[in-house]
Amino acid sequence: MSNFGFTDLRLVNPYEVAFREARSAVKSQKILENAREFPTLAEAVADCSLIVGTTSRGRRALEHPLRRLELGGRLIKKHAGPAALLFGSEKFGLSNADMSHCHWLLRIPTREEHGSMNLGQSVAVCLYELIRNPAAAKATPEARRAARAADLDRLTELLAQALDQAGYVHRQESTRLKLRRLIRRMDLNAHDAEVWLGMLRQILWKFSAASDSPRK
Amino acid sequence: MSNFGFTDLRLVNPYEVAFREARSAVKSQKILENAREFPTLAEAVADCSLIVGTTSRGRRALEHPLRRLELGGRLIKKHAGPAALLFGSEKFGLSNADMSHCHWLLRIPTREEHGSMNLGQSVAVCLYELIRNPAAAKATPEARRAARAADLDRLTELLAQALDQAGYVHRQESTRLKLRRLIRRMDLNAHDAEVWLGMLRQILWKFSAASDSPRK
Repeated sequence: MSNFGFTDLRLVNPYEVAFREARSAVKSQKILENAREFPTLAEAVADCSLIVGTTSRGRRALEHPLRRLELGGRLIKKHAGPAALLFGSEKFGLSNADMSHCHWLLRIPTREEHGSMNLGQSVAVCLYELIRNPAAAKATPEARRAARAADLDRLTELLAQALDQAGYVHRQESTRLKLRRLIRRMDLNAHDAEVWLGMLRQILWKFSAASDSPRK
Repeated sequence: MSNFGFTDLRLVNPYEVAFREARSAVKSQKILENAREFPTLAEAVADCSLIVGTTSRGRRALEHPLRRLELGGRLIKKHAGPAALLFGSEKFGLSNADMSHCHWLLRIPTREEHGSMNLGQSVAVCLYELIRNPAAAKATPEARRAARAADLDRLTELLAQALDQAGYVHRQESTRLKLRRLIRRMDLNAHDAEVWLGMLRQILWKFSAASDSPRK
């Protein structure tokens, strides 16, 4: 809840009051401190105008509309007014009596063979769907400064020289074209092109130093 | 993982081998039994062609492209070939050395004040994004058989009769129009319209029985 910015936790007749001491919730103390307990579900949701229950696929004959999270999340976001999202106990889920308070039910699209989810994970997945920003999926990847052609040409030249000195290839025009394409496929950003230029310069320096040094 | 149909769990140098005995994973034994352990991250991801690390917002100066889950999930789904999604330890997350194996990094869009998530919940949210079906959000609500106008007219008539006998209103034409609109706003399905007709018939029967019975 805290990760995704939800703060209004309500508990119906909790068996353990120990929930307040939850240790792992380092940054969530406020939510736990402000959590309210209610003797009945009706009282817990009295001020809400949309009540949505969560259930795993096909747990029982459902008398309610059952919506997948993708659609249900959209409807909850569209709802004008306070909405309650109900989660049952880890073991039994929501009872039929609990569900009768709901306008409709929501299911996380788990696979059929393993429908029932861990409670904390269910809550995280549902709340993620509610804060999920569809526009963010379409965003272009982060701005990157691609290397300029001049740097890539210089890179091609230095790589060809290094390979030549290493005896890898003869300096043929067809090889030069292959190297040029190879380097374009690397899709280097400006910074990485600089790094490569530096590495190749060093290699070339080492070659020239080695060939200059007197041999025994 | 099991909930969302992912089966290939790999562990790098786990501190506890006790993970295999995880009790709560009732339906996930197969995943745990088939989980493989590797001494290094490089070995664990050797056969993968896309390596994506997970990190919380702004944990450190990031040298990698950092993508929100909405976008990152889309890119992973589009990737042709085996992709690895890396999660660090609950306490420390991925190290810089771990991240250097990654093509890019992924972050769950948690709020800035509370970025770091529970490990199991992070995994659930990321895998949900990967199996999420955008088309399901656009789907029209489940097919429902709306009540026919004839039934709604009958309902309006019975309700007007019941209210008349209860002394709630006089049978004016304007009242009839209000009731007709009220009943249309209920947006009843065929079955619920039947239920309402039955309830009102019973109420009317009770009224007539009461008025027929000899009074003292």
